[in-house]
Amino acid sequence: MKHAVIMAGGSGTRFWPQSRKEMPKQFLTVTGDRSLIQSTFDRCQPDIPAKRFWVVTNAVQAEATRLQLPEIPDSHILEEPCGRNTAPCIGLAAIQLLAEDPDAVMVVMPADHVISPSAEFRKAIGHATRLIEQDPSRLVLFGVRPSYPATGFGYIEQGEPLEGEGPGTHVASFREKPDAETAQQYVDSGRFFWNCGIFVWRADTILNCLKEHEPEIHACLQTLAPQVGTDQWPQTLADEFPQMKSISIDHSVLERAENICLLEAPFGWDDVGSWHALERLHPQDVHGNTIVGRHAGVDTTGCIIRGEPNHLIASLGVKDLIIVQTKDATYVASRHDEDGIRRLIEQLRESGHDQFL
Amino acid sequence: MKHAVIMAGGSGTRFWPQSRKEMPKQFLTVTGDRSLIQSTFDRCQPDIPAKRFWVVTNAVQAEATRLQLPEIPDSHILEEPCGRNTAPCIGLAAIQLLAEDPDAVMVVMPADHVISPSAEFRKAIGHATRLIEQDPSRLVLFGVRPSYPATGFGYIEQGEPLEGEGPGTHVASFREKPDAETAQQYVDSGRFFWNCGIFVWRADTILNCLKEHEPEIHACLQTLAPQVGTDQWPQTLADEFPQMKSISIDHSVLERAENICLLEAPFGWDDVGSWHALERLHPQDVHGNTIVGRHAGVDTTGCIIRGEPNHLIASLGVKDLIIVQTKDATYVASRHDEDGIRRLIEQLRESGHDQFL
Repeated sequence: MKHAVIMAGGSGTRFWPQSRKEMPKQFLTVTGDRSLIQSTFDRCQPDIPAKRFWVVTNAVQAEATRLQLPEIPDSHILEEPCGRNTAPCIGLAAIQLLAEDPDAVMVVMPADHVISPSAEFRKAIGHATRLIEQDPSRLVLFGVRPSYPATGFGYIEQGEPLEGEGPGTHVASFREKPDAETAQQYVDSGRFFWNCGIFVWRADTILNCLKEHEPEIHACLQTLAPQVGTDQWPQTLADEFPQMKSISIDHSVLERAENICLLEAPFGWDDVGSWHALERLHPQDVHGNTIVGRHAGVDTTGCIIRGEPNHLIASLGVKDLIIVQTKDATYVASRHDEDGIRRLIEQLRESGHDQFL
Repeated sequence: MKHAVIMAGGSGTRFWPQSRKEMPKQFLTVTGDRSLIQSTFDRCQPDIPAKRFWVVTNAVQAEATRLQLPEIPDSHILEEPCGRNTAPCIGLAAIQLLAEDPDAVMVVMPADHVISPSAEFRKAIGHATRLIEQDPSRLVLFGVRPSYPATGFGYIEQGEPLEGEGPGTHVASFREKPDAETAQQYVDSGRFFWNCGIFVWRADTILNCLKEHEPEIHACLQTLAPQVGTDQWPQTLADEFPQMKSISIDHSVLERAENICLLEAPFGWDDVGSWHALERLHPQDVHGNTIVGRHAGVDTTGCIIRGEPNHLIASLGVKDLIIVQTKDATYVASRHDEDGIRRLIEQLRESGHDQFL
C-alpha cells in the first residue's frame, strides 16, 4: 500500500520574518488559502487517504502540525527528539510504516514546497509506484527540469533509459550545488535535473539500503523497530535517535545505491526557498512589482512586497526591494542580496533579538 | 497678563503614516515621552499657568487635545467649524482672551514644532513681553537663524535695530519660499531668518490690525465677540466663522503692518516638517542611520527608521531609505524624494485607501 511521508522538521530562516522557529515555512500560506503542508496533504487526495499519512517533525512543531492536519492520526505525527537530517528521518518513518504494513510503499515529500497541478503530481506518483511493482528494489526519485541556472540546488544527471516500457532513466551522476557557469552548462545540456526531494520506494527496500550503506543508523533503527506502538517507544526513541549520524538520504544512500530510477517531474515545482519565490508564484504588476497584500506605490519598480491582510504597505521612489511586514517584525532588503538574509538572521541572534526568530 | 495660544488645526500629511487625519503630528511623540503639543505646553511652564492656555483646534481633534492636555480648562479648547488659516484662528483666540482679560498679551505658537532649550524659549518670550510693555502697538515675531538653505520656509529680512535698549530689529522685508540659489544667498548674507510662526502681541493690538487690514474678518469677529461664553456662541460661531476669508496672519497683517519687531530666536527650532526631521532630532549610528525603535541591520546606511515600540525593523543591503512602521500601515521611501509623499498621499486618496489617511 502507498503511504505518504511528509518531512517537516526544517527550521528555514529564508522566509523570515514570516517563518519563525515555531512557525516554519510549511505552516505558511504562500498561494491560495491553505498552508504549504496542508497543500502537500491535499495534492495526494484522493490517492492516499489520511490514515496512511505520516509526518516526521519535532516537538516544537508537532502541535501546529496536528492543528493544521487534524485528519492525520495522532500516532502518525512522529516527533524527532533532535534533527538528524533526512536519512534517520526516513528510516524512522520506514520502521513505523512496516509495523502497520509490511508491503508499505513510501512517498517521501518535503512539507514546504509548491507543486502544481496536483493531478500531474498524482499521475507521476502512479508511474513511480508501477516502476516499484516491476522491481521492488528500485529507488525512484523525481528530477525537475531546470527553468533557470540555479546555483542553490544539487543536480542529477540523467543516465540511460530504464529497460522495458515507459518513462524513467538511470542516474548518470549526482552533482553538488554548481557555480553559475557550471549551472548554465547543466541547463544547456538538457540532461541535468534539480533534485526536488520527492522519493518513492518500499519501506523495506530503503531499510535494506541503509543496512548496506549506513549500518550504524540501521542498527539504531533495529533497536527501535520492536518498540513501535509500545510504552517503551518514547524512551527508546530519546535514547537511540540522537546517536544516529546526521546525514542526508542523498549522501548516505542515493549517491551510492545501484537501483536508482529518475523520473522527470511532469509538474511545476518551487521550493519557496526565498522571498524571490513570490515572484514565481504570483503575477507581476506593470511596474514589475509582486504584491501580496495591500499596497500603494509611487515610483515603485521591481519590488516584492508582502504584508498581513489589511495592513497597508506604501512605497515611494524605491526599486528592487523586498518588503515583508508581519505583526511584530518588518523586513526591508535589497532583492539583489538573496543570501544576505543568513547574515541578518545571524545578526539578530547575536544582538539579542532571539524572540523574533 | 500673558496667555498662550496654541494653533492646532493642521492636518499635516508629511509625517504619514504616523500622522493621520484624527491624529495629526502635534499628538505624536517625536523626542522624549511627551507629544509635540504636550511639549508646547510644558515649555511655557511655570511662566504661563494652564488656566491661561488656549488651544484653537477643530471638532475632529478636540477630544485628543483634551485627553493630552487635561490641565487646560475645557472652555479654552476652541473648535473652529472649518479651517480658515491663521488670521481668523488668531482673531478667534483674541476675542476669547479679551473677554477674560482686557490686557491680554497673546503668545501664539504652533502646536507641532520642536523647540529647545525651554528656558531659552521662556527668556525670549520675556524679551518680547518687555518690548510690548514699552510699546503696546508692537507685533513681535521670532526669526530662526537658518542652519541650511531651506527652500520650504518663508524668510524674514532683518531691518534696522529697534530704538532704545536691548535686542530686536525692524523687519526689512518678508520673502516667500525661495529657490535653492536664493536660499543660499539668504543664508550667506546673515540677514535672513526663518519665520517660525511664534508671535507675541496684545490681543487688542492684533484685532486693531485686523480691523485696518482685513475689515471683513474683523466685522465677523465683532459679531462673535459679544457671544463669548453665552449659549449663542456655538451657533454664532457656526454662522460667522465660515464667512471669514481664509488667509494667513503673515499675508493679512504682518506683511502690511508698521510696528513689527523681529527677535532672533535664541532657541533651537525644528518644524518637524518631514521624516528627515528625525535626523536632526536624534543622533546617527556609525553608518549614518537614524533609528527610533528596535532595529537590526546588515549593510544598511543613511536610513531613517522608525517603528512602534517592540516592533523589530530589520534591513539588509539598503541605503538612503525612510522606513516607518505603524500598527496598520508601513511606509518605505527613498529619502531623496522629500516632496513625493504628497503624491503618495494623493494616490492613497484616489485608490480607496482613505481609511489610512
